[in-house]
Amino acid sequence: MHSNYKQGEVLSRVNSPKDVKKLSSKELTQLCSDIREYIIEVLSENPGHLASSLGVVELTVAIHYVFDIPEDSLVWDVGHQAYVHKVLTERKEDFVNIRKFNGLSGFPKMSESIYDSFGTGHASTSISACLAMAIADKLNNRENHHIAVIGDGSMTGGMAFEALNHAGTTDADLLIILNDNGISIDRKVGALSQYLTRITTSATYNRVKNRIWNMMGGNTASINKQQNFFKKISFVLKSLFSGKSNFFEALNIRYFGPIEGHEIDTLIKTLNDLKKIKGPKILHIITKKGKGLAKAEDNPTTYHAPGVFDPLTGELAKNNSTNATIPKFQDVFGETLVEFAKKNEKIIGITPAMLTGCSMNKMQSVFPQRTFDVGIAEEHALTLSAGFACKGLIPFCNVYSSFMQRAYDQIIHDIALQNLHVIICLDRAGLVGEDGATHHGAFDLAALRCVPNLTIVAPSNEIDLRNMMLTAIHHNGPFVIRYPRGKGYTLDWHKEPRIITIGKGEKIKDGYNIAALALGNMTNTAKQVAEELKSDGIDMAVFDFKFLKPLDKNLAKEALTSYPCIITMEDGVINGGFGSAIMEFALDNHFNNRIERIGIPDMFIEQGSIPELQKLCGMDKESVKQTVKRMIKS
Amino acid sequence: MHSNYKQGEVLSRVNSPKDVKKLSSKELTQLCSDIREYIIEVLSENPGHLASSLGVVELTVAIHYVFDIPEDSLVWDVGHQAYVHKVLTERKEDFVNIRKFNGLSGFPKMSESIYDSFGTGHASTSISACLAMAIADKLNNRENHHIAVIGDGSMTGGMAFEALNHAGTTDADLLIILNDNGISIDRKVGALSQYLTRITTSATYNRVKNRIWNMMGGNTASINKQQNFFKKISFVLKSLFSGKSNFFEALNIRYFGPIEGHEIDTLIKTLNDLKKIKGPKILHIITKKGKGLAKAEDNPTTYHAPGVFDPLTGELAKNNSTNATIPKFQDVFGETLVEFAKKNEKIIGITPAMLTGCSMNKMQSVFPQRTFDVGIAEEHALTLSAGFACKGLIPFCNVYSSFMQRAYDQIIHDIALQNLHVIICLDRAGLVGEDGATHHGAFDLAALRCVPNLTIVAPSNEIDLRNMMLTAIHHNGPFVIRYPRGKGYTLDWHKEPRIITIGKGEKIKDGYNIAALALGNMTNTAKQVAEELKSDGIDMAVFDFKFLKPLDKNLAKEALTSYPCIITMEDGVINGGFGSAIMEFALDNHFNNRIERIGIPDMFIEQGSIPELQKLCGMDKESVKQTVKRMIKS
Repeated sequence: MHSNYKQGEVLSRVNSPKDVKKLSSKELTQLCSDIREYIIEVLSENPGHLASSLGVVELTVAIHYVFDIPEDSLVWDVGHQAYVHKVLTERKEDFVNIRKFNGLSGFPKMSESIYDSFGTGHASTSISACLAMAIADKLNNRENHHIAVIGDGSMTGGMAFEALNHAGTTDADLLIILNDNGISIDRKVGALSQYLTRITTSATYNRVKNRIWNMMGGNTASINKQQNFFKKISFVLKSLFSGKSNFFEALNIRYFGPIEGHEIDTLIKTLNDLKKIKGPKILHIITKKGKGLAKAEDNPTTYHAPGVFDPLTGELAKNNSTNATIPKFQDVFGETLVEFAKKNEKIIGITPAMLTGCSMNKMQSVFPQRTFDVGIAEEHALTLSAGFACKGLIPFCNVYSSFMQRAYDQIIHDIALQNLHVIICLDRAGLVGEDGATHHGAFDLAALRCVPNLTIVAPSNEIDLRNMMLTAIHHNGPFVIRYPRGKGYTLDWHKEPRIITIGKGEKIKDGYNIAALALGNMTNTAKQVAEELKSDGIDMAVFDFKFLKPLDKNLAKEALTSYPCIITMEDGVINGGFGSAIMEFALDNHFNNRIERIGIPDMFIEQGSIPELQKLCGMDKESVKQTVKRMIKS
Repeated sequence: MHSNYKQGEVLSRVNSPKDVKKLSSKELTQLCSDIREYIIEVLSENPGHLASSLGVVELTVAIHYVFDIPEDSLVWDVGHQAYVHKVLTERKEDFVNIRKFNGLSGFPKMSESIYDSFGTGHASTSISACLAMAIADKLNNRENHHIAVIGDGSMTGGMAFEALNHAGTTDADLLIILNDNGISIDRKVGALSQYLTRITTSATYNRVKNRIWNMMGGNTASINKQQNFFKKISFVLKSLFSGKSNFFEALNIRYFGPIEGHEIDTLIKTLNDLKKIKGPKILHIITKKGKGLAKAEDNPTTYHAPGVFDPLTGELAKNNSTNATIPKFQDVFGETLVEFAKKNEKIIGITPAMLTGCSMNKMQSVFPQRTFDVGIAEEHALTLSAGFACKGLIPFCNVYSSFMQRAYDQIIHDIALQNLHVIICLDRAGLVGEDGATHHGAFDLAALRCVPNLTIVAPSNEIDLRNMMLTAIHHNGPFVIRYPRGKGYTLDWHKEPRIITIGKGEKIKDGYNIAALALGNMTNTAKQVAEELKSDGIDMAVFDFKFLKPLDKNLAKEALTSYPCIITMEDGVINGGFGSAIMEFALDNHFNNRIERIGIPDMFIEQGSIPELQKLCGMDKESVKQTVKRMIKS
């Protein structure tokens, strides 16, 4: 046994779904309690996604009790709520290494377990994948079941709708479980969310019932003979409004619910009933994010991924706030946005469900009318920003780098092509650490460099970030600012920002024979390496290019002219990125320097701490030093 | 006057929306007739998008009569239906040059006219953009109107739903006109489409009415006293089912309609009424695609963009079928897919609304159960394909290169990361000609090259395409095949295909001093240039790399070792594409050849014939020859 975490009596007997199926009703309830305790204990010391998984303990147990995974397919949308599933599917012991380097992924992963029918990480993919599996099994004459579990937050993503629209035309054996906690990461937004609340409280049904009641004369004695009829019609209306004939049924998907999501017996009974019903159907369950840990229930956004905490009280560890004087990049973004918005009323903020994650909540608290959290809807967020720009507003649209991939066409087609003044801020660019392969912001530099009209920058520190944000405001065209996850480098960051020259980088230090041409946060690594190489008698020059695009050609020329050996350094894929831009420039201009590129190699990088992953990629200080020494030697 | 096309008496008096506003009801009807005639005449000789525009003549006239564009904002979703709008907004004379090099764009374009509130081309963007304009104008205390016209086909795109979900939470002055012709390009698919048909025919309403009627005893004499009540409840039900409480109202968007879309007076009256209603609202109109040209009404898919035709009869010109013996790439794809599907029952076809465009209709007619047109839903199409692959099916997912941008994240996150055996066929890759900037498949090579696990190929001819399709079937991993729009090169293409070696290109011919390293269709240009340069005493080697990824390193080494001068040739952006891959390889391996890249430069390329655009980009034979001569000379 790898862990010291205690397992309750029932959990200690459960290693796989077949063990779950043997349990009595009472034991199942105890299992839920045991799992909750286990997850809370493990995560209290090994940070991960807490609240979402606590919300689906009973659901997960019920699914494994009723269905036969992996004979039946089970797809967890987003997947950060799949911890319970991992614990129940032969990964209970390994669970203590979740999100660690060489440990379990924080998300479902096909290569990790046969019980993970589909890997997830980004939102809103589950219905598409699960529908395909259902259709495929039908084509293969298999009679099995397919369950997609999707949160109300993920349901707002456009592709979930696209999949519903398709599912409704099929007879696929697809059960969509809408896990409705009224929360995605931040509190949920959008009309669909409001709608779900309405049907949950049966308001529509009640309103219609009241209208008919009133039409019939209301609460008077004269209508006795109609009461029997009213009972009947009441039943029809209920089935038509409250349950049926709703948003989902308009799309030809049978709707059931809402039901309470924390009653294991109800869930099992309902799932068993639904198992017999053919065709696409949706079960709407109501759960509480963070269920079972009072503080998490009360503060689901904070406890989405709370870091280290006290497993009994839920109290967050104090050491979460050490080094608080060096802020996160996201906080500098958030505070600077407010600062600029105060001075310029044209500035607005847009984010697709990353309000807290990118610290745009700071803007929202000061300028709620000028802050737009559109929910999980990256495509809409970018084209909405384009529309704002058409009207002379200055939109800062903040989206994590890896989620930007969802809006690639909107950046090309709606923003760049029309040369609109939209400022796209890509938080979590580069390696992000424990969230792993689905979340690294690896591709933005290469994917966006080829798009005309874009200006693309990467700050190496917080002061740079502020300067670039100010510069973006004064630049008339699309402007992309990409910066890393986590803490910055500068204590004294709150300096008056200044406008920098478009396409102008900076030589940080001179050197002899070799130069590092760096972009963004890798500039800091370059500086440290240069410093440390001195003791080896190597004097490396350092250039901070700041701009991926337009590339500083004068600076590139200076570097290529002065230094026969060049390393390029970027926190992104090396194929097609900043290093490639330097190589293109070199060959376009007939330089024949020796150039090596340092960055993320052509492979998907799994989870781990950022230092571990940088080492894996040859991007850490030590690896870079070895590269430089090797180049110098040869 | 630039054109010889006759204009009807009323149209001849109309140049801008203010002229429309002066017309009587009778004149407005005549204007519609005049416009139809004008558009049919012009397009009969200058091919363009015909049927969609014919369907919105009355709507467009009514909008310009009722609203004040550009004070009010008007966004045409997709935009190929905006020809009438162009004719009415000071572009009547220029209309004869639509889609021509330096002529009018085939789509709305902000830089072309102040009347084009937002540029479009790709589907489903209009609600996002128009909602932003409405919110922005409200923030600026302007009291104006905002109209998005969106087809029922575009409404299935996920981002349209994302925008509806947002709109429903606002009080923005947004009028969404749902132009429902039951057709996008191919016949419409999806549950939403079925739903629209249902509410159009009031089936839901009728069904409920019948149920209640039956409950009340049905058509018997005994229920007379309840009939008065029934009349009342009937009214409530009608308002609740047929008009209200529907899909859109679930999202808090007021729904009006459906109304007939070809009655100008009704449209004007309705739009005037809606102008007074605040907040987001949707007007559902029923139109006929191709209205006014019998053949187009009967065959809307054929007449979506019919080429040259007889303006009176609609008869398609015979010369459309000359050279019919050399097929289009898309047809070779379509026929080969059927051929392979007959031999391997695991093969299935998926396309997001490009069934005819990519010739997958051939597969559908033979294997309807194994062909999936999911409507305009690129994201869903790719992740659906991923799900199919999980179950051992072999999905060929065909999507135009520029629309693939919509599913970039799905390719990375759902397919490549999981290394799933999905075959992604990108039709219309490279320059596409008259459809212009929004439609060129310019970015796929650069955008996908940086994605791990992908195999990416580009056939230089139809035989290659077939070989690559066969190879993809036998390769266990994601496989991208990109090929151009239009005709191929080979008369005798129907040869038995063979499996080619992954990552292996081919030397086509030897040469002296200089070599062309080409990818895809540019191989043919390279061969022709090599042939023609002989008379200038230049002997250029030609290499067909076939694979962008994995790059044929041996072949690259051979070329770089043997030829000091290298040109790379690709039908895609040069930043980050095939040429960059060659440059990276050269510098990684310490070659110092002179290398120049030929391809699409770092700018958006407008519409024109492919030869015109190739010349603009320096990609045509003559330009390439000049480049080679310049390199040889220096």
